[in-house]
Amino acid sequence: MKAARYYGKEDIRIEHDVEAAKLGEGEIRVAPAFVGICGTDLHEYLGGPNFSPTSPHPVTKEKVPITIGHEFSGVIKELGANAPSHLKVGQNIAVQPTIYCGSCGACKIGAENACYNGGFVGLSGGGGGMSESVVVPALSCLPLPENISLDVGALVEPLAVAWHAVDASPIASVPKAKCLVLGGGPIGLAVVQVLLSRGAGLVIVSEVAARRQEFAKQFGAHHVLDPRSNDLVAISKELCGGENGPDIVFDCAGVPQSLETACKAVASRGTVVNVAIWEKAVPFDPNWLVFREAKYQAVLGYQRKDFEGVIKAIAEGRIKPEAMITSKIRVEDLVQGGYTPLIKEKDKHVKILVDMHA
Amino acid sequence: MKAARYYGKEDIRIEHDVEAAKLGEGEIRVAPAFVGICGTDLHEYLGGPNFSPTSPHPVTKEKVPITIGHEFSGVIKELGANAPSHLKVGQNIAVQPTIYCGSCGACKIGAENACYNGGFVGLSGGGGGMSESVVVPALSCLPLPENISLDVGALVEPLAVAWHAVDASPIASVPKAKCLVLGGGPIGLAVVQVLLSRGAGLVIVSEVAARRQEFAKQFGAHHVLDPRSNDLVAISKELCGGENGPDIVFDCAGVPQSLETACKAVASRGTVVNVAIWEKAVPFDPNWLVFREAKYQAVLGYQRKDFEGVIKAIAEGRIKPEAMITSKIRVEDLVQGGYTPLIKEKDKHVKILVDMHA
Repeated sequence: MKAARYYGKEDIRIEHDVEAAKLGEGEIRVAPAFVGICGTDLHEYLGGPNFSPTSPHPVTKEKVPITIGHEFSGVIKELGANAPSHLKVGQNIAVQPTIYCGSCGACKIGAENACYNGGFVGLSGGGGGMSESVVVPALSCLPLPENISLDVGALVEPLAVAWHAVDASPIASVPKAKCLVLGGGPIGLAVVQVLLSRGAGLVIVSEVAARRQEFAKQFGAHHVLDPRSNDLVAISKELCGGENGPDIVFDCAGVPQSLETACKAVASRGTVVNVAIWEKAVPFDPNWLVFREAKYQAVLGYQRKDFEGVIKAIAEGRIKPEAMITSKIRVEDLVQGGYTPLIKEKDKHVKILVDMHA
Repeated sequence: MKAARYYGKEDIRIEHDVEAAKLGEGEIRVAPAFVGICGTDLHEYLGGPNFSPTSPHPVTKEKVPITIGHEFSGVIKELGANAPSHLKVGQNIAVQPTIYCGSCGACKIGAENACYNGGFVGLSGGGGGMSESVVVPALSCLPLPENISLDVGALVEPLAVAWHAVDASPIASVPKAKCLVLGGGPIGLAVVQVLLSRGAGLVIVSEVAARRQEFAKQFGAHHVLDPRSNDLVAISKELCGGENGPDIVFDCAGVPQSLETACKAVASRGTVVNVAIWEKAVPFDPNWLVFREAKYQAVLGYQRKDFEGVIKAIAEGRIKPEAMITSKIRVEDLVQGGYTPLIKEKDKHVKILVDMHA
């Protein structure tokens, strides 16, 4: 079958003779429909393999080359033995690509998203969305209601990252929470949408790029600030009423300046949620948090409940993420039409989707 | 009256002509009995003024020289007008030295321990424990039950720091929590005692100094490890059962290595509580927490409820802190008998108390 395969740095190949996976018990064969390109994909392309396994992955036993694409929707093509009865051939689904071992300390406490041996379909082996067929566990298939189209279905994964991060914050216990989101890339914009759907009273976004600032406004941010020309700590406090800073700050930028701003802007007893993955250690003065008695909450990936939350919110119209899709391309144009514009003109785009049937 | 006054770096003077404060409405005049010397006092002596105000403090309006001593017990000598009826002349008390403005954003949300303009009696003006008389608000006076002696009463303050830190951790929601305490100085040892009194199931202490290792064992730590010769991350995980690290890690050391160890040792979904005050920014890789989906909780000082919790626990025999007192000295010997041994032979001591009546 046809599949996009990652071999290493700047080496992605569209191949036509990739063997389709066998369908096992409790598994589902899915024909991917739309596949998002993620920042992690770009990192792997520009400087990897980092996340992609170069020796056999502990769960998938695979190593590069691997089929890519972990943000995807699709249609159920075939049910393995003993598949749950709520899944049907022909059904539209979003795929939760989490791979976990089920036996480590994290899995045993129900934190399979932080599995010691974890990974993702499309990054760690186990096939990927950019192929004609992928086999995933039945539990990874989240049915899409009729009013969610397959292209929007490919946005469920990045929105689930945001849902998980917002869920780990005190959004439920702080009425009309005042929030600051650092970074207006795809995840930052997803956080904005989830926050508004979950009752946040004020959402401030910090973003450098002009086009992304516009996206943030489009998705409902109340204030959008350029961190280069604004004292974010002072202005966000002012926007929050002048006495305390934002109740919750989301770091979706993951750079030294965003860490410092997050910790210095957050309210007394407030929470910084780190949604970013970092490249290296950066300077951090714990006193930034000490004198506010604040906390720093790290989150990682998502769980099934987050996919369910996002799908329900989209189905009920509380999240309207369509505008995140800024381009659709054919898989044959993956690098030129997808990776390259996301790298070179990144602020023009939020999500570029690969249409597997185009 | 006689008082020990801090003038600046390596300049503490015992003076005999310090004017006693006037007693105002709702205030209490206290004759200090025993006064502990704290790490903050040593920092001020060695390299200050840092914390001590060199321009008028926003609340006390005082600047150096200031009377020192913020960990103290005493006897009520005089009640100001409209003092609450549960306070009596002759009563033994511990003093909560928190100074706060009452009007900032932190105070307005009940976080007066993180007051933007806050300070401490004995560090920020408003008199101090190392004097014949000090005037404090009635709310700062915590009556000591008859079975708590005045010398132990001077230990309530450092134990309240630990109580506050433990209270901010998930100790109440994690049955028999497995805990790692980094640093076996006075605050680390206080955390050990509070943890054991609050139901911790396992307490591991990391400490370099031999005498402090013994103290940790004496106060009930189940395991005491020297971080120079042990892989704390691996061994603490092993001691916690081999699958996950400690549920809660307390950083009472406040050095780059303790930050890294705390974040790498903590269990998936666990909590690092920072009890230390830091001197500068240090390297920090947020991924240490990300891949455990852990949180980093900063705490600062204490509140009245923490003093109440400590006093009740001591009165009921759940905390027996007497052995923390390793020496008692006269105020005239403050530097030679107190500061100098705490600086030069620090691992021989936990708390040196100044006996104001000796």
